[in-house]
Amino acid sequence: MKRIGILTSGGDAPGMNAAVRSVARKAMDAGLEVFGINYGFAGLVAGDIFQMTSETVADRINTGGTFLYSARYPEFAQVEGQLKGIEQLKKFGIDALVVIGGDGSYHGALRLTEHGYNAVGLPGTIDNDIPYTDFTIGFDTALTTAVDALDKIRDTASSHQRVFVVEVMGRDAGDLALWSGVAAGAEAIVVPEKDYDIKQIAEDLKKGFENGKKHGIIVLAEGVMSSEDFLAELKKHGDFDARANTLGHMQRGGVPTARDRVLASKMGAYAVDLLLEGQGGLAVGMENNQITHHSILDLFDEKHHADLSLYDLNKSLAK
Amino acid sequence: MKRIGILTSGGDAPGMNAAVRSVARKAMDAGLEVFGINYGFAGLVAGDIFQMTSETVADRINTGGTFLYSARYPEFAQVEGQLKGIEQLKKFGIDALVVIGGDGSYHGALRLTEHGYNAVGLPGTIDNDIPYTDFTIGFDTALTTAVDALDKIRDTASSHQRVFVVEVMGRDAGDLALWSGVAAGAEAIVVPEKDYDIKQIAEDLKKGFENGKKHGIIVLAEGVMSSEDFLAELKKHGDFDARANTLGHMQRGGVPTARDRVLASKMGAYAVDLLLEGQGGLAVGMENNQITHHSILDLFDEKHHADLSLYDLNKSLAK
Amino acid sequence: MKRIGILTSGGDAPGMNAAVRSVARKAMDAGLEVFGINYGFAGLVAGDIFQMTSETVADRINTGGTFLYSARYPEFAQVEGQLKGIEQLKKFGIDALVVIGGDGSYHGALRLTEHGYNAVGLPGTIDNDIPYTDFTIGFDTALTTAVDALDKIRDTASSHQRVFVVEVMGRDAGDLALWSGVAAGAEAIVVPEKDYDIKQIAEDLKKGFENGKKHGIIVLAEGVMSSEDFLAELKKHGDFDARANTLGHMQRGGVPTARDRVLASKMGAYAVDLLLEGQGGLAVGMENNQITHHSILDLFDEKHHADLSLYDLNKSLAK
Amino acid sequence: MKRIGILTSGGDAPGMNAAVRSVARKAMDAGLEVFGINYGFAGLVAGDIFQMTSETVADRINTGGTFLYSARYPEFAQVEGQLKGIEQLKKFGIDALVVIGGDGSYHGALRLTEHGYNAVGLPGTIDNDIPYTDFTIGFDTALTTAVDALDKIRDTASSHQRVFVVEVMGRDAGDLALWSGVAAGAEAIVVPEKDYDIKQIAEDLKKGFENGKKHGIIVLAEGVMSSEDFLAELKKHGDFDARANTLGHMQRGGVPTARDRVLASKMGAYAVDLLLEGQGGLAVGMENNQITHHSILDLFDEKHHADLSLYDLNKSLAK
Repeated sequence: MKRIGILTSGGDAPGMNAAVRSVARKAMDAGLEVFGINYGFAGLVAGDIFQMTSETVADRINTGGTFLYSARYPEFAQVEGQLKGIEQLKKFGIDALVVIGGDGSYHGALRLTEHGYNAVGLPGTIDNDIPYTDFTIGFDTALTTAVDALDKIRDTASSHQRVFVVEVMGRDAGDLALWSGVAAGAEAIVVPEKDYDIKQIAEDLKKGFENGKKHGIIVLAEGVMSSEDFLAELKKHGDFDARANTLGHMQRGGVPTARDRVLASKMGAYAVDLLLEGQGGLAVGMENNQITHHSILDLFDEKHHADLSLYDLNKSLAK
Repeated sequence: MKRIGILTSGGDAPGMNAAVRSVARKAMDAGLEVFGINYGFAGLVAGDIFQMTSETVADRINTGGTFLYSARYPEFAQVEGQLKGIEQLKKFGIDALVVIGGDGSYHGALRLTEHGYNAVGLPGTIDNDIPYTDFTIGFDTALTTAVDALDKIRDTASSHQRVFVVEVMGRDAGDLALWSGVAAGAEAIVVPEKDYDIKQIAEDLKKGFENGKKHGIIVLAEGVMSSEDFLAELKKHGDFDARANTLGHMQRGGVPTARDRVLASKMGAYAVDLLLEGQGGLAVGMENNQITHHSILDLFDEKHHADLSLYDLNKSLAK
Repeated sequence: MKRIGILTSGGDAPGMNAAVRSVARKAMDAGLEVFGINYGFAGLVAGDIFQMTSETVADRINTGGTFLYSARYPEFAQVEGQLKGIEQLKKFGIDALVVIGGDGSYHGALRLTEHGYNAVGLPGTIDNDIPYTDFTIGFDTALTTAVDALDKIRDTASSHQRVFVVEVMGRDAGDLALWSGVAAGAEAIVVPEKDYDIKQIAEDLKKGFENGKKHGIIVLAEGVMSSEDFLAELKKHGDFDARANTLGHMQRGGVPTARDRVLASKMGAYAVDLLLEGQGGLAVGMENNQITHHSILDLFDEKHHADLSLYDLNKSLAK
Repeated sequence: MKRIGILTSGGDAPGMNAAVRSVARKAMDAGLEVFGINYGFAGLVAGDIFQMTSETVADRINTGGTFLYSARYPEFAQVEGQLKGIEQLKKFGIDALVVIGGDGSYHGALRLTEHGYNAVGLPGTIDNDIPYTDFTIGFDTALTTAVDALDKIRDTASSHQRVFVVEVMGRDAGDLALWSGVAAGAEAIVVPEKDYDIKQIAEDLKKGFENGKKHGIIVLAEGVMSSEDFLAELKKHGDFDARANTLGHMQRGGVPTARDRVLASKMGAYAVDLLLEGQGGLAVGMENNQITHHSILDLFDEKHHADLSLYDLNKSLAK
């Protein structure tokens, strides 16, 4: 193996650039040549590929988004798309790849490996919804952004004794809601992984205000419903001075936190180690503070599990 | 004058607590006794009033919201409401007041002055929509929050070459949109004070992407329309990968910026000076970096003017 | 057990208030009465103790420092001191305690347990230097503060092609230096756990600048030497445009990060669970993402181990 | 005039990049060609000059430092240096310049104008020490950084009832100390523009602690003396638990605040307007919220005046 390629795919996440830097620097340190592939698998197929130097990744560690850009490219699920990508790999003499992204990225990485080009996947998504890793690259930053917004919303909620339904991202996973809810001291957390009783939530809010609480913050995972819909439901159970807020896409951007940078740096270097050992078709994870890898095939058979102990913890602390 | 009262009214704004601290400390330094009135004019009428010490306002300078709480209380527009409030002032021996808030606060302050209780108003609102002051308490913090969110949104916009319509607060005023749009390097700013041509905006966006721009950020003042509605309009003029974002109530909270704290501190101390001189019915402002005051009556005759030079500036810099 | 006490001891750390809140709320939820003890063991002995309500800990989760205050009190190492403390526990009817802090706190907790008052310790320190826990409460916030400062220093270093020796806290532990160094993309990390070769560092810096690097950031753990001393040494090996910076006590304060709040919340609730089971003399930890406890005696026999894989990782990524 | 050059000189300041962007975009919008000059006057003389496109300044508005780099170059005070610079201007066909920086930059700009190359200076420095402008580019960001650090230090000061002497930058000017001291609610501010009585400060601190104050923060301008020296003096007047902190170079970096970005954008565009009118030898300012210009010669005759009303304001509020 002499040349590796790097691409980012799917939704962007803070820390992707730190991961790209780590892969590139580690590979160069091992004597490899490194190529950046713009716009994910679309750019691979289009040959939007350039050689990186150490400087290409300088001062990228603390930037949000992905400077290799990302794009949807469903065509890569088809063999034709894959073969076009492989043509480009041949053209540039690239032997192996690191792919940073979510589900779709793993599928692409697996296909390339099957075609004889070892590819390793890194979990880059704010949703924390990937199996075999406790944390994905970007989750800690999105969590920080959500909690910062919740802190601000609480100021205004307390000033007016208001209820706020705050919708956070996470697709089908409740991780961002659970963590941000506990960290922000929310009155209630609503996630797809747990049934909820809106009548009970309304009663708890009323009781809270009667007991001197100044705010009623409900953190709602987008996987359940929209904040507007939830608010409409809630208002059926009480005459609240209440507002709906959807935090939106700012959760996807921003300067990555120290944790995300370290996680990305560790995972990126480890991916290069795996490629150097001649391995492919693998997904890197961080489990119990240890860096690990699993076959991508295993990931497809496993589901991500949110830390639901946070749900119960919040119940006892919110009173 | 021996005793003064302080209340906050209308929507909360970061820096209100710094203003309350300044009024209280300055008044105590001048030998006055100081009373906090909770929940604005509603609390005044209800007698929710307590004596403050220097410690009451300790470590409040850097907190968001208002620790004196706020509440809507339209009844204070009626003489009955006012007389009930004055009864409480008599009961607590309060001779004069400082009222921090927006429009409604000024009306209340004027009425109290007419009844023989000097009251001075401070402009506390994130909307920056008050005449005779260049900046209101809270505007700089809301601006900072909006720009921070816009920076994050730009990360993800650039990663995917997306258009974002980002709705910021400001009620009928475009200040927050103008300042945050320039500060964030937005592609377009849409405010109530200026006609806009959505077809032209769409064409500029297309041209921008053709010329290599990676993002298309439109900062929209809430006084124009909602981000969803604007997005729907925009999509009639081009097939954009576009999203709508409404920043929402987090713009009202948060740790006040240094500027807001200094502004609030200056205004609060100056209000006490005015009361010590036996003046009332006045609104404090910061004009051309000088602290000033005007009759509240004059404020009602004047309109706030946004700095529209920012609009033109942005047009030439966004290309 | 009907009544528990909470105190914070030793150097303050962000997240201590979140831990106090968690202990208090969880204990109240279990039907216990909760007492706050001001100023650590000094306040215990002096009887500076007050009953907490749910409101006492409201809006504390996101505040820095410790609202129960802290104080050095070496007298508590003596039996006389301990007996005076126990007198106060009897007076207030307190059966058990949660102690949040570092080494000294654990000693105090152990002594109280030996006297028949179950006490559980939580690791509250920014230094991350406590055995049997991967992270201490406060470390993530201090890390965030250090990295934020390093990012800023890098801006000015890059503008002038300068070398900066930046001293971070950590007492005898290199954790803060290792994590912040990797997260900030430092050119070198110097920690007590690893020998360093200052001549080699100087040569690497020179080579870096020759290869186009714009900055030379050395993150130095305070346990090694001061930044001024290190700079003086470094200048013997090269004619650098270099500056020394000591980040100082701001590393101890600030709004706790989401991670620290969640960690503190989990640990606080778990400590109450242990006390409810009638256990004492224990230290709570977070090991491999699982919440754990160990005998405090075991802690005294064990040493904390920094994650030195970060040192090697940084070496390969800094080139 | 067809081609203009831009350079940054002296100490870097946040917002310099926003100013460069504004100059470049505004000039391109007016049909000019724009050249970036790296490393200030040193780079001018060395011919380190490149043509800018709109993309060169994309996504620079929110970055710290100066991407055109800066360097000391005392040789430009000599005619030989200047003539060498002019040779390069001829070579690249550059007719006029915008120079962003402090004192030294203005001297250079004046010399170039005298040689027939119109040059306009923008005040880029965190020290706010330039006459004929209320604010310099970078001051608001440095203020924000200092206040953020002071907030953190206050957390730990309050936890331990400690005194902190915190040294902030500003060279001979007290602006940063005055503004940050008021914004942080400091107990005392010490600046070069005002005599101070250390015995009185010590007594005020003692009285403050007796009256229940939890912290004693002294904000010290670097122009007075170092924090260590001040602390040593202070300790002669009382047995304080006190620490010295020097905030250091992080005050020079960081993401520019919204205010600094808007100020830089306005000034940059205005400088281009002046050049388009055929003017040179001028310094741009922001006075009483109006953008202004003065002859650079006038600047050399005038002194900057700090807002000392802040000093008195703090005295009455700190009690």
